[in-house]
Amino acid sequence: MLKSIAVMTSGGDSPGMNACARAVVRTALYEGVEVWGINNGYHGLLDEDMFKMERKDVGDIIQRGGTFLGTARCKRWEKPEGRMQGYKNLVDRGIQGLVVIGGDGSLRGASLLSKETGIPIVGLPGTIDNDVWGSDYTIGCDTAANTIIDAINKLRDTASAHRRCIVLEVMGHRCGWLAMTAGIAGGAEYILVPEEEYDLDAICADMAKAYKAGKRYILVVVAEGAGSGQEIGKYIAEHTNIDTRVSVLGHIQRGGSPTVIDRVKASQLGEQAALAIISGLSDIVFGFNKGHVVSINLHDAVNNKKTLDPEYAHLARVLF
Amino acid sequence: MLKSIAVMTSGGDSPGMNACARAVVRTALYEGVEVWGINNGYHGLLDEDMFKMERKDVGDIIQRGGTFLGTARCKRWEKPEGRMQGYKNLVDRGIQGLVVIGGDGSLRGASLLSKETGIPIVGLPGTIDNDVWGSDYTIGCDTAANTIIDAINKLRDTASAHRRCIVLEVMGHRCGWLAMTAGIAGGAEYILVPEEEYDLDAICADMAKAYKAGKRYILVVVAEGAGSGQEIGKYIAEHTNIDTRVSVLGHIQRGGSPTVIDRVKASQLGEQAALAIISGLSDIVFGFNKGHVVSINLHDAVNNKKTLDPEYAHLARVLF
Amino acid sequence: MLKSIAVMTSGGDSPGMNACARAVVRTALYEGVEVWGINNGYHGLLDEDMFKMERKDVGDIIQRGGTFLGTARCKRWEKPEGRMQGYKNLVDRGIQGLVVIGGDGSLRGASLLSKETGIPIVGLPGTIDNDVWGSDYTIGCDTAANTIIDAINKLRDTASAHRRCIVLEVMGHRCGWLAMTAGIAGGAEYILVPEEEYDLDAICADMAKAYKAGKRYILVVVAEGAGSGQEIGKYIAEHTNIDTRVSVLGHIQRGGSPTVIDRVKASQLGEQAALAIISGLSDIVFGFNKGHVVSINLHDAVNNKKTLDPEYAHLARVLF
Amino acid sequence: MLKSIAVMTSGGDSPGMNACARAVVRTALYEGVEVWGINNGYHGLLDEDMFKMERKDVGDIIQRGGTFLGTARCKRWEKPEGRMQGYKNLVDRGIQGLVVIGGDGSLRGASLLSKETGIPIVGLPGTIDNDVWGSDYTIGCDTAANTIIDAINKLRDTASAHRRCIVLEVMGHRCGWLAMTAGIAGGAEYILVPEEEYDLDAICADMAKAYKAGKRYILVVVAEGAGSGQEIGKYIAEHTNIDTRVSVLGHIQRGGSPTVIDRVKASQLGEQAALAIISGLSDIVFGFNKGHVVSINLHDAVNNKKTLDPEYAHLARVLF
Repeated sequence: MLKSIAVMTSGGDSPGMNACARAVVRTALYEGVEVWGINNGYHGLLDEDMFKMERKDVGDIIQRGGTFLGTARCKRWEKPEGRMQGYKNLVDRGIQGLVVIGGDGSLRGASLLSKETGIPIVGLPGTIDNDVWGSDYTIGCDTAANTIIDAINKLRDTASAHRRCIVLEVMGHRCGWLAMTAGIAGGAEYILVPEEEYDLDAICADMAKAYKAGKRYILVVVAEGAGSGQEIGKYIAEHTNIDTRVSVLGHIQRGGSPTVIDRVKASQLGEQAALAIISGLSDIVFGFNKGHVVSINLHDAVNNKKTLDPEYAHLARVLF
Repeated sequence: MLKSIAVMTSGGDSPGMNACARAVVRTALYEGVEVWGINNGYHGLLDEDMFKMERKDVGDIIQRGGTFLGTARCKRWEKPEGRMQGYKNLVDRGIQGLVVIGGDGSLRGASLLSKETGIPIVGLPGTIDNDVWGSDYTIGCDTAANTIIDAINKLRDTASAHRRCIVLEVMGHRCGWLAMTAGIAGGAEYILVPEEEYDLDAICADMAKAYKAGKRYILVVVAEGAGSGQEIGKYIAEHTNIDTRVSVLGHIQRGGSPTVIDRVKASQLGEQAALAIISGLSDIVFGFNKGHVVSINLHDAVNNKKTLDPEYAHLARVLF
Repeated sequence: MLKSIAVMTSGGDSPGMNACARAVVRTALYEGVEVWGINNGYHGLLDEDMFKMERKDVGDIIQRGGTFLGTARCKRWEKPEGRMQGYKNLVDRGIQGLVVIGGDGSLRGASLLSKETGIPIVGLPGTIDNDVWGSDYTIGCDTAANTIIDAINKLRDTASAHRRCIVLEVMGHRCGWLAMTAGIAGGAEYILVPEEEYDLDAICADMAKAYKAGKRYILVVVAEGAGSGQEIGKYIAEHTNIDTRVSVLGHIQRGGSPTVIDRVKASQLGEQAALAIISGLSDIVFGFNKGHVVSINLHDAVNNKKTLDPEYAHLARVLF
Repeated sequence: MLKSIAVMTSGGDSPGMNACARAVVRTALYEGVEVWGINNGYHGLLDEDMFKMERKDVGDIIQRGGTFLGTARCKRWEKPEGRMQGYKNLVDRGIQGLVVIGGDGSLRGASLLSKETGIPIVGLPGTIDNDVWGSDYTIGCDTAANTIIDAINKLRDTASAHRRCIVLEVMGHRCGWLAMTAGIAGGAEYILVPEEEYDLDAICADMAKAYKAGKRYILVVVAEGAGSGQEIGKYIAEHTNIDTRVSVLGHIQRGGSPTVIDRVKASQLGEQAALAIISGLSDIVFGFNKGHVVSINLHDAVNNKKTLDPEYAHLARVLF
């Protein structure tokens, strides 16, 4: 059983990271294990910017967006010398295991550290994109999807007032989960995701027909990986007579007070990660599958590509 | 295959009922089946207050709380003559199957109608309490939990400013799911649910000790089935020296624009219910289990009592 | 010109107190004047719980509800000996003037300190009730009113679904401003305030008639000073056939992230208070009148009773 | 006294337009005057798309964003023949006066109609920009400002997590009121408005210095009339070493459920407009000045440019 562990957040921040780090810290302390917080991801590990944590250091943060530990992307970590230095900084403090909360790139960096040094590593999927292989869920995806439907509610008001088409670009380079769930929930007419081909000419023809039949407004949700909102909006405006506006939601999707799901699931994942690493397990990522916490092989998680449940696309077709 | 079906909402309303009814209607129409909306639950069925629906009748409602069909509790339905009259009113219109969206009592009424007349019935669990046996999820529970944490966020501000204890009573007569998940997510110090015994004297002693040690505020979340918020608050005030306030959230928990989860899952349930009843299935309730839509025997659903996952209580203990 | 001032929050907390205290601190520092923060209102002053403040001590708080300084009601302050001790604690630190942010009772305590010791005092109206004489506005009233209409939005969903009457009790012992503005904004059918007599029998008769004519739901907003929500709800249920529910919003009204108005106006008031006390002015309260910051005699402010603009009641009658 | 009036919304929609139109309609009916609703602004007037309204036609809309009457910009209205046709369409129905709710361009179109035909016209300032001369307030500006600070709250989370600079572009071509008030309320470090020159090199130097001193994040709010968010963000990124991101809020600012202020003030304006036009007044715009409803000469309102209160810029400098 390990006596001292550390936790960091890395890569793009997501709502629920605080709840997750809090659960790691409190579970470790509950088990009588020392726990360190590392600031600003791998940067802090290299710069020795870390501190021993107490229960109250994670008080009053479960409701906050962002991450109190800070996060960053780190070039130095990409080199073996960097990772070796990070390992040394852990060993010097007697830290025997590391919990990394972050997205794909961060987990990949953790996977390399584990391979090269053998230090126990447990990863937790922190990203709004919900694109980590082996898990139905990533920390922050529910808050981000709800942020998007709030935006859709507002855009719907003005679209309806003006009989407009609104194209809303949301995050998701490789994965259309956010666009798909928020689009279905927002009642979008068209949802464009990187996992599915689409025919913009057919969509324009379809829209023009609906407008003639009296449709009041049209909402298109597009994942950034499926095309640029600006270009798609321009194409629609040019190929139909419909007054079209584009909204690119951007980094707002990353912030905000986390939802119940993102607080509770992040807490469950943090608890399991702490228990696992304390017991000496390594090279796993905790996620959710079929409603329960599951462990996934870390290297599999970073080397496989998650697919989007085709039921969503079918549901979208039936409902709209 | 059925040619004509009807849908109603019944019992207490919950956010997502509109999304659900919309999915029933649109799936039926997509399948080429006639679909009727019945107003105000079993009342409307008895009073012949129902109408044939088109796609646009369920436009612009997915984002709305409440239920556009109206809902009610209905004394007349409790008698066999009432149910026989309702059956006749369906048959007179050529309606061959009924989808009922509602809580425990409503599903029980549907179960009786099915037994007595043999008309195909499919139930869908619409209640914020998340207390339907066989399903991890009921329509509206996620929105209600998020409404509670919004309240907790506000109460925390004022509790912290005044060094107070706040007792928040939330819904849940038989089931502590709402109190438990919202309590964990809200960072509550104590969560009292009907499924678990608690020792108020021990809690008071614990609180007094924490206050002496400098704790800034304490939050107690209590499900209505575990005791009266007012009485618990009074007891705490009398048995500790802590300035205590009570908030009873009440019907606010029932309203509000539904979350992504409550829109998407309600839509998935509505789709499956429509497909099932059209194909002639009966006496089932659709719910979620292990992350997927499942069908549950209607009579089992109403005759069994759901238990609360003990992992929640354990998590609450570790984290606070 | 004073060289050192102090700021405290006192009485019930209200959203915007942080923005206000921040403006006092930053304005003082901008002017090169030393500024102390006193914790927990008059308690902190008596217990010598105060500290010199820097710019960054008020960073990242403008968006927070509650008050980072803490607040409390204080029995000891009611006695002259208490106030003399508080004065001594200020003088001992070289503090030459005091800014008090709080409601009626807090300003009254400040008024006594000024009379008895001659130390310069400037008051700022911090209370959600908007009941300070001489000012159109008190810090927090806009956030509280918006919190109430969010609740009304949710209650409307469920009231409409069930054809119910909802009675919503809101804060306001002596002043109906909150009930009136939130009631108008929420589209309430009846608004009961302490400043106006009402005839509950006439209201019941009116309601019953409206229901017969097909009205879907009725919303009654009642200020706590105009009667108990529970009793009024019970009376309505007994004297009409309308299914009636009561909601008592309680301390939720005090919390929440402040609105733009409550941040900007609180900042403007804080700036003016700091400038005034630094220049040696005393015995004034800053408020808003006719859209601009005005100074009001402190003793007048605490000895006069604000009246409610009768235009509101007229508007409510015309609109509903 | 007029016997029949009409109301329309025109130009860009803004939250509170529904509350305002509702007040016009209900006040007219309260006074026993016939009132017509015109759909889609001047388009509807030209296309004879209008209808007589009853009290219940404006039920359940006070809480909605957008405008239930629809709105549009209208090329045909720019020509005298168009306006003459519109006049004829009013006269044909016996409509004797017109209330126009809209921004600058819409009021200009109304001003021309009045000059050319003599029909009584009353304008109401409906625009989120708060840029109508003679009024402190335009319908929708408070909701839009609050939408912006919600976005800032979310952006702050992610900016702080990453030590980033965020540039947020908000609406306001000619008028910086939205940027200024939301910027102050959001605690922005820099606020760029069309009314004030700024030196981007000096800002970059200042930022770089603050970052060296340990500043965690920087927020820049820029009104679209003061420069492109994208370009300013690019300049900052190139001239400092600070990781910079840009967010363009876009049409989201136009939507959303209106705040208390935007519902109550819009209602007050609508009431006064209805009373004025019924009494035969014309060529006025109602707005707010010094906290009260005032009437402004319509032609002055459209021919003068509103200035931004310099106190805001001063306050911003002191506070940040």
